[in-house]
Amino acid sequence: MKSFILKGDIAYSISKERTEYLENAYLVCEDGVSKGVFRSLPEEYAHLPLSDRTGKLIIPGLVDLHIHAPQFAYRGLGMDMELLDWLNAYAFPEEAKYNDLAYAERAYTIFSQAMKNCATTRACVFSTLHKDATVLLMEQLEYSGIVSYVGKVNMDRESPESYKEASAEESLKSTREWIEETKGRFENTYPIITPRFVPSCTGELLKGLSELSEEYALPVQSHLSENPSEVELVRTLEPLCPFYGAVYEKYALFGGDKKTVMAHCVYSSDEEIRLMKQNGVYIAHCPASNMNVSSGIAPVRKYLDADLHIGLGSDVAGGQTESLFSTIVEAVQNSKLYWRVVDQKYPPLRFEEAFYLATKGGGSFFGKVGSFEEGYEFDALVFDDSRIRHPQKLSLPERLERLVYLGGDRRCMKEKYVRGTQIDLDE
Amino acid sequence: MKSFILKGDIAYSISKERTEYLENAYLVCEDGVSKGVFRSLPEEYAHLPLSDRTGKLIIPGLVDLHIHAPQFAYRGLGMDMELLDWLNAYAFPEEAKYNDLAYAERAYTIFSQAMKNCATTRACVFSTLHKDATVLLMEQLEYSGIVSYVGKVNMDRESPESYKEASAEESLKSTREWIEETKGRFENTYPIITPRFVPSCTGELLKGLSELSEEYALPVQSHLSENPSEVELVRTLEPLCPFYGAVYEKYALFGGDKKTVMAHCVYSSDEEIRLMKQNGVYIAHCPASNMNVSSGIAPVRKYLDADLHIGLGSDVAGGQTESLFSTIVEAVQNSKLYWRVVDQKYPPLRFEEAFYLATKGGGSFFGKVGSFEEGYEFDALVFDDSRIRHPQKLSLPERLERLVYLGGDRRCMKEKYVRGTQIDLDE
Repeated sequence: MKSFILKGDIAYSISKERTEYLENAYLVCEDGVSKGVFRSLPEEYAHLPLSDRTGKLIIPGLVDLHIHAPQFAYRGLGMDMELLDWLNAYAFPEEAKYNDLAYAERAYTIFSQAMKNCATTRACVFSTLHKDATVLLMEQLEYSGIVSYVGKVNMDRESPESYKEASAEESLKSTREWIEETKGRFENTYPIITPRFVPSCTGELLKGLSELSEEYALPVQSHLSENPSEVELVRTLEPLCPFYGAVYEKYALFGGDKKTVMAHCVYSSDEEIRLMKQNGVYIAHCPASNMNVSSGIAPVRKYLDADLHIGLGSDVAGGQTESLFSTIVEAVQNSKLYWRVVDQKYPPLRFEEAFYLATKGGGSFFGKVGSFEEGYEFDALVFDDSRIRHPQKLSLPERLERLVYLGGDRRCMKEKYVRGTQIDLDE
Repeated sequence: MKSFILKGDIAYSISKERTEYLENAYLVCEDGVSKGVFRSLPEEYAHLPLSDRTGKLIIPGLVDLHIHAPQFAYRGLGMDMELLDWLNAYAFPEEAKYNDLAYAERAYTIFSQAMKNCATTRACVFSTLHKDATVLLMEQLEYSGIVSYVGKVNMDRESPESYKEASAEESLKSTREWIEETKGRFENTYPIITPRFVPSCTGELLKGLSELSEEYALPVQSHLSENPSEVELVRTLEPLCPFYGAVYEKYALFGGDKKTVMAHCVYSSDEEIRLMKQNGVYIAHCPASNMNVSSGIAPVRKYLDADLHIGLGSDVAGGQTESLFSTIVEAVQNSKLYWRVVDQKYPPLRFEEAFYLATKGGGSFFGKVGSFEEGYEFDALVFDDSRIRHPQKLSLPERLERLVYLGGDRRCMKEKYVRGTQIDLDE
């Protein structure tokens, strides 16, 4: 049943400047696509079944532009380290375990159930180096009901022997096999080309991945300008490239005809920003991770003002939680600190701007996603925010802000729809 | 029954440098006081009833050195403003409502139930200007089972007409009445002298409050050096005082023989820090609030290195949640940003240091509180962290870090003890 009506109190972004709030309104889904929100129900939809959610708060599904599935198993652990140390001490040894399919199944089952039950409806997901474990992850995510891009990770240099591919050739071979095995196989789960980041990929590997992206028409995800020591390492490894993003650009893995999302961009230079803008590269802003591994604060206001494509990422396990409500709050908080301690030229994000980033901003990476405007794919969440007790009446904008700030995704979410299909949430 | 034994996996701070972790250990409570933690049960306690919590995680109760009870009703609202604007737009109008006892009862019931059910066992609480509503709040908090200092707030200048006391004299009169009415009346709830902050208190008022503190031997709480515009306002209002804290010192409201806790201290000068150290003033570090109202980042490492008294505060509703697990995480995260973007002289807090702040660090404001060492008052929390699924075995230090980072206070807390009395948690 992909055609129906939800009635309730509805909030969604039209643009970063404008949020729509309609109480007691009708949200129409036809064949998994939104027909819009109406104060009174148009005659033409009167025949559709109506689910009365009066008093409930309804918003678009949330979009996570950056999350590491194998790191979910150690979220909230080892948070006293900086990025490169943390990768070597925690991330790489943990990811290496996914060579064991039994372990992968145990861990990815937990991850996929979390994805199913949280407020995320779309995600760009990093897997590990392992082809088989990546296929398994895609099967699990398909079962979760969310829509995702999933990438087998590539690494052929500057990595521990226990977690590195033998050569660019080997890496490309297994990547091609993985693509062949998964492309077109799932309804909601798609492969995405995923060089881990410049430090761990040779030019030969990046070139080959670019060709695979071209050949199979696949999008690209990676990391960019996250941490000072990482940026410095890239400068040492690629002395001929004027800035970090120029390495991806050199191999045609930086937007343009290839849809591309880059995580972090905390230290992007003006040249890098210009190139991202020109090539339509997406930024996945991951504030929790940027704090946890001591990277810094990304200048999100600058990116918004420059009209770059930008959305939010939980970056589990650099970020400790998959909750994008937390990420919204952290994005606002970090932008306030940026304004206060870094540069008062850039005013803090308003709540509604961060809400936009988590929905329509990141959503456009997936097409018409993240809003309830007519023609948008129908991803929706229904919350019973009456569970958060309050001594007085609140307006709908206040209810939305409170729901997000108080982590209502964990306590109050009652229904979740992806492309018009209702997900069967676990209690 | 205030004498018993808990058996389980136990973690607690000895000092900011040292955390004890004991699996399958015995925590002995005798007459509401800890007799220590033992790997095997000493013969002398063999007669006490034993609660077997094998596999559960047991830690000391958490201490909130700064929270505004009347602001609980609008936590997570109006977060797009800076401190002084936010006070005028949200805090003061909301607090004014507590003149209406019916409203106060409705709101404080919600607040007290939250205090009862969260991981906080001790709190320093701001009320409003209103004597009767403050008494009501104290009754409610006594019922919640936590131990708290509660302050009727004083304000006689630089405040809206609708939320201001008529004169210093009036303010002092109603404060004296409130003290007479509540001092010694409750087992777990005590009055504390509470000038809101320098901007809203005349010298005459501060002088009178200091005398009341002396006369009744009451501790003191207020705000200090929170936000640049507030610090500037104090400079304008008190041009003869060399720094903010010197105003409190001038009226003998700044430690010494009066136990004093000051919230924030984001912008304390070296002189102010020296005076806090000399007078034993406590700092309530409130990282969420400092982000939300764009105050900045407090230099906590500097305070720890100087051996100042310091603990954590949720500062609801500057902070959006009463969860001190969140505050621990935010304290670590903010210290990382301080190191990265402000001053690399001050390394980030380690997780265990922030855990210390939330327990023994703030606890000493209440006496021997916040640890399980022998002689400490028995405040304890029991968590079933098996509810956070994980594909592999974790060590006890890892379990503690994960529990805190993943907000286990909300999902996993099973039992709460204050001074040896078990609190009857709501489901």
